[in-house]
Amino acid sequence: MLLYDGGRAPNPRRVRIFLAEKNVVVPIEPVDMSTLQHRSEAITALNPFQRLPVLQLDDGTILTESVAICRYFEELYPDPPLMGTDAADQARVEMWNRRMELQFLNFVASAFRHTHPAMKEWEVPQVPEFGEANRPKALKMMEYMDQELATRAFLAGDRFSIADITAMMGMDMLKPARIERPDHLENLMRWYKAVASRPSASA
Amino acid sequence: MLLYDGGRAPNPRRVRIFLAEKNVVVPIEPVDMSTLQHRSEAITALNPFQRLPVLQLDDGTILTESVAICRYFEELYPDPPLMGTDAADQARVEMWNRRMELQFLNFVASAFRHTHPAMKEWEVPQVPEFGEANRPKALKMMEYMDQELATRAFLAGDRFSIADITAMMGMDMLKPARIERPDHLENLMRWYKAVASRPSASA
Repeated sequence: MLLYDGGRAPNPRRVRIFLAEKNVVVPIEPVDMSTLQHRSEAITALNPFQRLPVLQLDDGTILTESVAICRYFEELYPDPPLMGTDAADQARVEMWNRRMELQFLNFVASAFRHTHPAMKEWEVPQVPEFGEANRPKALKMMEYMDQELATRAFLAGDRFSIADITAMMGMDMLKPARIERPDHLENLMRWYKAVASRPSASA
Repeated sequence: MLLYDGGRAPNPRRVRIFLAEKNVVVPIEPVDMSTLQHRSEAITALNPFQRLPVLQLDDGTILTESVAICRYFEELYPDPPLMGTDAADQARVEMWNRRMELQFLNFVASAFRHTHPAMKEWEVPQVPEFGEANRPKALKMMEYMDQELATRAFLAGDRFSIADITAMMGMDMLKPARIERPDHLENLMRWYKAVASRPSASA
């Protein structure tokens, strides 16, 4: 198989961190998103949505969408579990991963993409008013995460999961999104320091 | 267990259709979203995000997020599979469900929520310019769905899946979102007619 990777962007990073946590090594084809190589003919042929990462299996099957790619590896390499164990735990992890994706990372990314001049070619059309509206929503979610993290080590429970990876992507994007890092939220910052210092975080 | 249901809104419907396809009957507590009962103290205590549906398990565990609730039932009642079978099939279904949710239903819903006067209390602040920007994106995705459906019966393959449920919610919302139904997309309309006429669609 071959993983078409996109470098520093949040979605490619999510998959690389997931693989590092599982100690799984996959052949990687780097694609330079900074020069818009994800819009090349070669990548468009693999993924008409021109997004990365893309995983090509040995039989030619193309998988896109970071969480779907993670699901594939979770099924092949269940240990350590990053998407839950029994039915209730799997659902709990999925709930938290979706909250972090749809109501945190998505808010931070929307603020970034709709307001930052460097994103003009990436988000068409940019709607700055919409970008602005996402900033207080991201902050509100961080306050909720802080409350929840008062009682446990990780977002979905006592075990590190894909929800922590997704949330870390949101935290890492606060600065380019010009959202102030809420250093007063002690539980959140303790969690962020812990996840960001795992070896996988530099993958 | 008890499912706090929200009537006609897309997310409550997704879970009811999923359960109907599995022939699983769950006790239901109706919540009237038209009178904003999902913002009541009782629902807020269950789900601080004031969204429905909410599933309460017998041990008190609260599950929110429609797809996470579906995941729980998929694990408990794997037959018929609505979220894939082996690793590659599960990933394929998840890829399609995410495409349909993030790049179709979400576009249609954003057009609706950010432009429709009735949604003023639901989407705060409404940004009409952002809503408008979602309409051509939804149409472009329907053209892609139409191409894909030329070669198979359902979005993720030859078997009905959660991706079809999510996509049907987007199609059903075209009218309130004031997006013209693309009757010229024959494969898409054949698929829509087929999924909308399944007994589960009226759940």
